[in-house]
Amino acid sequence: MLSTVLSEIFKKLPHEKVHAHCDGPCGVYDPASARIAAEAVLSMTKKLIALVPPQGNNSSELATYNNTFSRFVAIKEEQAQQTKKELLILWTDYFKPEHLATFPDLHDTFWKAAKLCSACKVNIDQGKAEELMQAVEKIHKMFWQSKGRNDSWITAS
Amino acid sequence: MLSTVLSEIFKKLPHEKVHAHCDGPCGVYDPASARIAAEAVLSMTKKLIALVPPQGNNSSELATYNNTFSRFVAIKEEQAQQTKKELLILWTDYFKPEHLATFPDLHDTFWKAAKLCSACKVNIDQGKAEELMQAVEKIHKMFWQSKGRNDSWITAS
Amino acid sequence: MLSTVLSEIFKKLPHEKVHAHCDGPCGVYDPASARIAAEAVLSMTKKLIALVPPQGNNSSELATYNNTFSRFVAIKEEQAQQTKKELLILWTDYFKPEHLATFPDLHDTFWKAAKLCSACKVNIDQGKAEELMQAVEKIHKMFWQSKGRNDSWITAS
Amino acid sequence: MLSTVLSEIFKKLPHEKVHAHCDGPCGVYDPASARIAAEAVLSMTKKLIALVPPQGNNSSELATYNNTFSRFVAIKEEQAQQTKKELLILWTDYFKPEHLATFPDLHDTFWKAAKLCSACKVNIDQGKAEELMQAVEKIHKMFWQSKGRNDSWITAS
Amino acid sequence: MLSTVLSEIFKKLPHEKVHAHCDGPCGVYDPASARIAAEAVLSMTKKLIALVPPQGNNSSELATYNNTFSRFVAIKEEQAQQTKKELLILWTDYFKPEHLATFPDLHDTFWKAAKLCSACKVNIDQGKAEELMQAVEKIHKMFWQSKGRNDSWITAS
Amino acid sequence: MLSTVLSEIFKKLPHEKVHAHCDGPCGVYDPASARIAAEAVLSMTKKLIALVPPQGNNSSELATYNNTFSRFVAIKEEQAQQTKKELLILWTDYFKPEHLATFPDLHDTFWKAAKLCSACKVNIDQGKAEELMQAVEKIHKMFWQSKGRNDSWITAS
Repeated sequence: MLSTVLSEIFKKLPHEKVHAHCDGPCGVYDPASARIAAEAVLSMTKKLIALVPPQGNNSSELATYNNTFSRFVAIKEEQAQQTKKELLILWTDYFKPEHLATFPDLHDTFWKAAKLCSACKVNIDQGKAEELMQAVEKIHKMFWQSKGRNDSWITAS
Repeated sequence: MLSTVLSEIFKKLPHEKVHAHCDGPCGVYDPASARIAAEAVLSMTKKLIALVPPQGNNSSELATYNNTFSRFVAIKEEQAQQTKKELLILWTDYFKPEHLATFPDLHDTFWKAAKLCSACKVNIDQGKAEELMQAVEKIHKMFWQSKGRNDSWITAS
Repeated sequence: MLSTVLSEIFKKLPHEKVHAHCDGPCGVYDPASARIAAEAVLSMTKKLIALVPPQGNNSSELATYNNTFSRFVAIKEEQAQQTKKELLILWTDYFKPEHLATFPDLHDTFWKAAKLCSACKVNIDQGKAEELMQAVEKIHKMFWQSKGRNDSWITAS
Repeated sequence: MLSTVLSEIFKKLPHEKVHAHCDGPCGVYDPASARIAAEAVLSMTKKLIALVPPQGNNSSELATYNNTFSRFVAIKEEQAQQTKKELLILWTDYFKPEHLATFPDLHDTFWKAAKLCSACKVNIDQGKAEELMQAVEKIHKMFWQSKGRNDSWITAS
Repeated sequence: MLSTVLSEIFKKLPHEKVHAHCDGPCGVYDPASARIAAEAVLSMTKKLIALVPPQGNNSSELATYNNTFSRFVAIKEEQAQQTKKELLILWTDYFKPEHLATFPDLHDTFWKAAKLCSACKVNIDQGKAEELMQAVEKIHKMFWQSKGRNDSWITAS
Repeated sequence: MLSTVLSEIFKKLPHEKVHAHCDGPCGVYDPASARIAAEAVLSMTKKLIALVPPQGNNSSELATYNNTFSRFVAIKEEQAQQTKKELLILWTDYFKPEHLATFPDLHDTFWKAAKLCSACKVNIDQGKAEELMQAVEKIHKMFWQSKGRNDSWITAS
């Protein structure tokens, strides 16, 4: 996978010391926030695909189905927005010009990841939700690499 | 430490299978959300303590100090609120009646943790912020124990 | 009704003076906030049950139905979340350890009430919405009892 | 007091039946929401006036004072905004053109009440906070009069 | 159109100098915020009308349709609420008692515009969405007239 | 000024037709939202600089000063965050890969503008606030250029 290869290359690069002057500036950044939200997007997408509309015209069954469907879409929307927000905090506040030498594709990586968040809203598309998880994993690796750490990618679900 | 002892005991207990029927119900819970916010509370508390008021009456230096102080308090407030919110999601949505046998102090643990969030707002108190971190760590262990996992407690800062 | 019996018992207990050291700490707590939101949950649940899907395939009628259904679900969701939030403010900020002697089921009462909020989101279930109203009424009585007042339970609708 | 006189007059007017076609439309309106927020504004204003700045240059005492002052201002701001929001929901969603005959000063009453919310933000002014309480009480009376009820004005604090 | 006639009359009136004592008080008001949100309401309304439900019982096509429909309704709702909020900021914070002489229908104009926002939520009604645009245009003209400017009404879409 | 020169060059380039597939997808984008928020940032920064701390130890004058200062910082913070949010909507949702040929510095322009928002929070710095206005003006020109329009840059204040 591209992100693994990239990660291997980064590990061999010298780790540049970057002073944290964040927005807060609490200095506490963690891509786990984006990862948790992206997992929820993938989970809701799968659940929406698995949801079976009721056969026949039973009004109460239809209402139950619509209640669930409508809520799942709203949660998928909210979590995709949250993923985007958490990713953009890393892009605008954590990463600094001195990181561009190590990560020349920094902007493009975040732009595509943000657009994947939108794609997961507009569609019910498990492929896109899995691509989003991979994009967040790539960013997880870039982030910890930039801090000279090598934290594993562990999901909650 | 109490939480470590507790965690050891829990490991010896048989792990009960609990079906997830969460609020979402996306089924993606992760105490890392609370941990990240609690780290920010501790960080802002330390920075507020370290902040030195300007000597003399230089109006511009005073304004800079007040801008920073005022923002740090607001971020501490917001992050303490976020910690409380994330903890309460675990308490109200993730934990179920069947967990009470394994964690008889479940309610008390969360109540005290929530009250520590408030204490970190009302005061600038590094001791309280560190107690909050310990409370979140205890909940981290209870949570993963309940899922039959043994995830390490790793902080971002 | 259980809550009435309970309330009668509490009235006979000596009223302990508790100093207010709230989160704000504005000291203004009022279970009416939770009650208003819970009334909205019950109202939207009833309206969803009463909503009749259009017969036939008239595209405009279907759109009108879906617009209304989708909005009602979203308002039910929002108000159930608001009920939960308002209840948890009382639990984490207003009630203090010294209240536990008078209300030994304090934690359990709030936990179940919070879980009823989730149940009202996940389902369109008038029974659950009515149970939620009863849970909020019970908390209303505990709250005013703890302040040595005896405010009536009056609903807006 | 003007509002009492007005209320007396309204009681003598025939109560017009008004069909509720609210925004939600859950039909659950209650001026208690605005009242609770306005009480918090008054409470925070009083606490800000009572707050004594530390004598001398003790850095830790100054930080404690500034933390408290800064939080109280933020809570006053938030609650004044909440009061305004709750009042405007009544004005835009609950009151209908048919109410104008009974309440010819409807618009002016709400406009002035909203402007009092702003005044309570911009200043630390107990007089304005008390005027706001009176404005909310007047609206409380108009509201229940319009529903043919006569609910008492009871505060939480 | 009424608003054009009104605007012509206002241009002939002497422009009163009004000191800005806004809520913020940043003094930056611009009806463009309301206009952008109202354009989104109109856009989503048109898209909802144009949305064709799938023929037959293909479960995946139905899910796609429902995902899109549900999201469009939610965005329409959010943008109508935003329009209302932006209009009410102008009414409560920008306009002052001295403006009432020039704009005797000030209150009524804003009240009706706010009620149009609600109508655009409750229904999928292109006529109402267009009326809302006209109401915002009228307010745009009143606003710039009051500042002695004559800014054109230019939409983004 | 660079942005003017750039704008002149863009005007001579052929306008590529780009289909709008936005996040909403309401298709209504307008850089005026970012401009209004950035104007508020500049306004609050100027007002903070102009604010004169009280001489002497009058407790009431000090409270008035602190109330105003604290609120201005909070509004500056909120509006800088709003500017960042509105800019990032344009970057992630409006601009598409096909725009990169025309605007090769697209990513860098938005990254720097977002970082200026943070700088305006962390400091009370009129220079930075004016740089932010210029950055938003540059984006205003790129945006309308991309749509084949030539809308003037008009501020509200």
